[in-house]
Amino acid sequence: MMEYIPYSSVEMKDGFWHSKQKLNREVTIFAVLEQFQKTGRFDALQCNWKPGMPNKPHIFWDSDIAKWVESAAYILQKGPDERLESICEWVIDQIEKNRTSEGYFNSFYLTVEPQGRWQGRGNHELYCAGHWIEAAVAYYEATGRDRFLHMMEEFARYIQQVFVKEQSASFVTPGHEEIELALYKLYRCTGKTEYRDLSKFFLDNRGVRPREPEAMGIQSHLPVREQKSAKGHAVRAMYLYSAMADIARDCCDQKMQEACEALFQDIVRHKLYITGGIGSSKHGEAFTIPYDLPNKEAYTETCAAIGLIFFSSRLLLSQVDSIYGDVVEQVLYNGFLSGLSLDGKAFFYTNPLELCPEWLEKDVDKPKEDQPWLPWLTQRVKVFGCSCCPPNVTRLLASLGGYQYTYEGDALWVHQYMDSEAVHGGMQIRQETQYPNDGRISITVDGVGRLAFRIPGWCSAYKIFLDGQPWEGEEKRGYVYLRLPPGRHNLELQLDMPCVLVEAHPRVREDAGRVAVRRGPVVYCVESVDNGPMVSEIMLDGKAFWEAEYEETYGMHILHTKGLRRNPDGFGDCLYREMVEDRLPVKITMVPYYAFANRGVSEMQVWLLRA
Amino acid sequence: MMEYIPYSSVEMKDGFWHSKQKLNREVTIFAVLEQFQKTGRFDALQCNWKPGMPNKPHIFWDSDIAKWVESAAYILQKGPDERLESICEWVIDQIEKNRTSEGYFNSFYLTVEPQGRWQGRGNHELYCAGHWIEAAVAYYEATGRDRFLHMMEEFARYIQQVFVKEQSASFVTPGHEEIELALYKLYRCTGKTEYRDLSKFFLDNRGVRPREPEAMGIQSHLPVREQKSAKGHAVRAMYLYSAMADIARDCCDQKMQEACEALFQDIVRHKLYITGGIGSSKHGEAFTIPYDLPNKEAYTETCAAIGLIFFSSRLLLSQVDSIYGDVVEQVLYNGFLSGLSLDGKAFFYTNPLELCPEWLEKDVDKPKEDQPWLPWLTQRVKVFGCSCCPPNVTRLLASLGGYQYTYEGDALWVHQYMDSEAVHGGMQIRQETQYPNDGRISITVDGVGRLAFRIPGWCSAYKIFLDGQPWEGEEKRGYVYLRLPPGRHNLELQLDMPCVLVEAHPRVREDAGRVAVRRGPVVYCVESVDNGPMVSEIMLDGKAFWEAEYEETYGMHILHTKGLRRNPDGFGDCLYREMVEDRLPVKITMVPYYAFANRGVSEMQVWLLRA
Repeated sequence: MMEYIPYSSVEMKDGFWHSKQKLNREVTIFAVLEQFQKTGRFDALQCNWKPGMPNKPHIFWDSDIAKWVESAAYILQKGPDERLESICEWVIDQIEKNRTSEGYFNSFYLTVEPQGRWQGRGNHELYCAGHWIEAAVAYYEATGRDRFLHMMEEFARYIQQVFVKEQSASFVTPGHEEIELALYKLYRCTGKTEYRDLSKFFLDNRGVRPREPEAMGIQSHLPVREQKSAKGHAVRAMYLYSAMADIARDCCDQKMQEACEALFQDIVRHKLYITGGIGSSKHGEAFTIPYDLPNKEAYTETCAAIGLIFFSSRLLLSQVDSIYGDVVEQVLYNGFLSGLSLDGKAFFYTNPLELCPEWLEKDVDKPKEDQPWLPWLTQRVKVFGCSCCPPNVTRLLASLGGYQYTYEGDALWVHQYMDSEAVHGGMQIRQETQYPNDGRISITVDGVGRLAFRIPGWCSAYKIFLDGQPWEGEEKRGYVYLRLPPGRHNLELQLDMPCVLVEAHPRVREDAGRVAVRRGPVVYCVESVDNGPMVSEIMLDGKAFWEAEYEETYGMHILHTKGLRRNPDGFGDCLYREMVEDRLPVKITMVPYYAFANRGVSEMQVWLLRA
Repeated sequence: MMEYIPYSSVEMKDGFWHSKQKLNREVTIFAVLEQFQKTGRFDALQCNWKPGMPNKPHIFWDSDIAKWVESAAYILQKGPDERLESICEWVIDQIEKNRTSEGYFNSFYLTVEPQGRWQGRGNHELYCAGHWIEAAVAYYEATGRDRFLHMMEEFARYIQQVFVKEQSASFVTPGHEEIELALYKLYRCTGKTEYRDLSKFFLDNRGVRPREPEAMGIQSHLPVREQKSAKGHAVRAMYLYSAMADIARDCCDQKMQEACEALFQDIVRHKLYITGGIGSSKHGEAFTIPYDLPNKEAYTETCAAIGLIFFSSRLLLSQVDSIYGDVVEQVLYNGFLSGLSLDGKAFFYTNPLELCPEWLEKDVDKPKEDQPWLPWLTQRVKVFGCSCCPPNVTRLLASLGGYQYTYEGDALWVHQYMDSEAVHGGMQIRQETQYPNDGRISITVDGVGRLAFRIPGWCSAYKIFLDGQPWEGEEKRGYVYLRLPPGRHNLELQLDMPCVLVEAHPRVREDAGRVAVRRGPVVYCVESVDNGPMVSEIMLDGKAFWEAEYEETYGMHILHTKGLRRNPDGFGDCLYREMVEDRLPVKITMVPYYAFANRGVSEMQVWLLRA
């Protein structure tokens, strides 16, 4: 069976992601730590909160810390960090000290609501447990120490007892999925099939009970094998679908596999922003109907983007098709990375494709939280009340090497292009590239008998050189395949990377008459800080000449071109007038979408008028 | 002082508005009656509701009946109708029978909440009283019978006693304005200045108390003379501003007049849809910030459009400027009339500029009322829970002649072009026209020494013939003025009325890259029932040739032209693709905006892409 070369075997050496991982390791993980300490999330683990005390624990706080520990573990895998390690150990100490004799730990239910254990389907209890399990697996893999892992195995067995044997909980499957993929990870780590079976139990029992209120929002409207259209809360959906993909492959469950593929196709064909964002609606943080992709109201939670990487990368293991690596890439460079500020200290929870700061000034005397017309945020912030995204960003960044390669025997598949070195089994792989700023990728391998690499969906022309000689490979489902004689070989891939204008399907009403700009996998946007106010007026045409200029701050190119906009002086006091041909040529500067809102409050727009 | 020639002196003779008034008189007033009877609104007037009985009266039901009676009175003015008259008398009987010894009548507070009288600023008590007063004035003018009027005078004096003398109410000024303009009408009808003074009392005391929560929503954030920007609930704002205009003129209150003009300019320059709709936001049914005019979310309540006619027509009395008549006309032919179905039996409360029935199918299992992303309605309905708009439509239609002319001495101003006959004082006026289908207007006058007529703002070329001879008049603030020798004269006005493309100010983000189509005062839209689905793809250019075809059902022309749209077949399963030049020529049919949604559920759009 094909497997990923794990993140632990892959080292970023240089280039874009190397610098992002460095930022994550040196800044972001500590920035998140500081906020989680300030807000009482770490203190909560001591389980000594009493009514009347400040910083009352919240039902999902454990998951925040768990994802932080998981991130720290991925970082520790790459090298020692005493501070990170001692905090992880302190966290594990708290769990050991405060967990019940059954192995149960939840800082909220052990303090705030002791009578509430397993009483609320929507209360994120199994969700928190799942994140603790993921953290324990990562920590074990990073340190080889199994104290945390064993505690979480006990917790998992206790969950099995409550939900399967005793059926004593007030619900059967969780309101927020996560436990399913975590249990599968625990099985993969320990080899104990009981955890996989428990994961499968939660999948099999989902959506089979009589219809519950708001079932669609939590993917309980149908048995999972009958779900073919992505629905409900986007993060929950991704976590569920990821577990479904795990179990489908592991158990050769054809119906589950078909459901996964249908769900994925539904997303890619109907519900995916060009930035890789998903979950267009604020209401329920959810998917809506096909082609409903509004730009200014786009919710597109950072965690949902991350979840889509989880789902897509798992599907790839069952069928090598470039669409899966394409989607991972599309998310990584755009709607995922937009969640993090350039300084590594602040986050977007939601990632709209259009922003106008004026919207914040609507005439109201209502409190801000009661203003449903507000855009989400115009600037990234250090922490949220519901702060799931920041530690999700850190754990994805820290484990990024794990999405680059899969292998089976002596066959190697290259899915992502990042300057890095990998040693795994008998394989050695050195990838050198300035990607995504440059389409040239040099891959030197040793111990690889068959090599396959993804031709990105955005790329319409490429060249291949094998050991310096032009080479024409067989392309199948977006991958070029070649056989290599024993020994060391160099593969050079040259992907054409022009700036292109992209249009959306006519059923995407909000993008009618509009184009977006993409260079390689990177989607661009205009900001008023470069282009003056009313960026909504900017028009591009297909004949535009593009100049790409490397911008150190972004680690990417910015783009310069010429476009048109109406002369704003012609209107005077009129709100409407007879149409006049008064489009003026203007210089336009575009920045990578991921980097928007890093220079103060600014208008921003991805989909521009097509002249 | 300039005054309007009252509706009672003007008779529609033929043409568009004659047919609408006929429909109103024969169908609409009875359709509203039937619904108000069915829903218990009429029964409530008997004040015998007890807890446990069905059809519990609502705080604003009285206002619905009052506006219905006012409408009936306008109709009765034009000719007898026993059924209407007997119902009016029945209503008046109920008030007489059930009112208190102080003269107070409110079917809600006399039954449901007897302890609540004058206890809630937001409870529409003075609003209902105001509508009763308006109805009483109209009924007196129609029938000459003063029973109702006297009862309402007593009510007004009681209000004066409670609010001015005793100050025993829990609030000083009402949460929903209306009493102010009603009291002014009562003063104009009776000549008793105490009612004008009470109206002025409510204006003078508004916004002078320490800031209240949500004060801006009800125009209480500032003293009225300091209000320069239109804010809050649009209907309330219009009713307030109308009273301000009345008092400003009557009392020569320069500061009040300046406030009125600033508020009007703020609306016309920043907050007015091309359809004449105002109040863009569902939240608080309110004005928002300048240039915030979304099309699909446009709230634009029918009552707010009517209120803008009230306000604009009053301002005209202080300063003859075509902008006031232009706005009345813009509202009448578009955002007001869209509130009524072609069959005269159903109503829109809100009048969006873009509609896509798919929006109703968003994947949710929440109840409809908890779906904030829903468009308002895709089809007109017979009655609403809050059914303020239907009787507002009937009373405006019935009194429409009153907006055509003003006079002062022997000078006559023609503001609106409608085929009609007027006899007032020594003046006789016969206006013959197919307007707005044709720009030719023939006006024959007798007893008029000075004649002025409005050149609509949409008109860029016109000709005038006086007694058959070409004539060049002096144009001042959008009116052409001429002196006439004694006797009978004919004025023929020929207004050029081509189809024009209109663009919106660059700060209206939602209309960037778009044009609307207008012919004369009539705004057009596309519907999918004519043009196939995805009307959002339709593109127009400035060189389009237009063919206008008279459509009996609408009493107006429909338009045919050619435009472009992308080939919808080229996408296959792709959500995005590199831009392709594949625009196909297509035939386009446009219908008057006011007539949209009369042929089943359909997509609709006013602002189209500019090719």
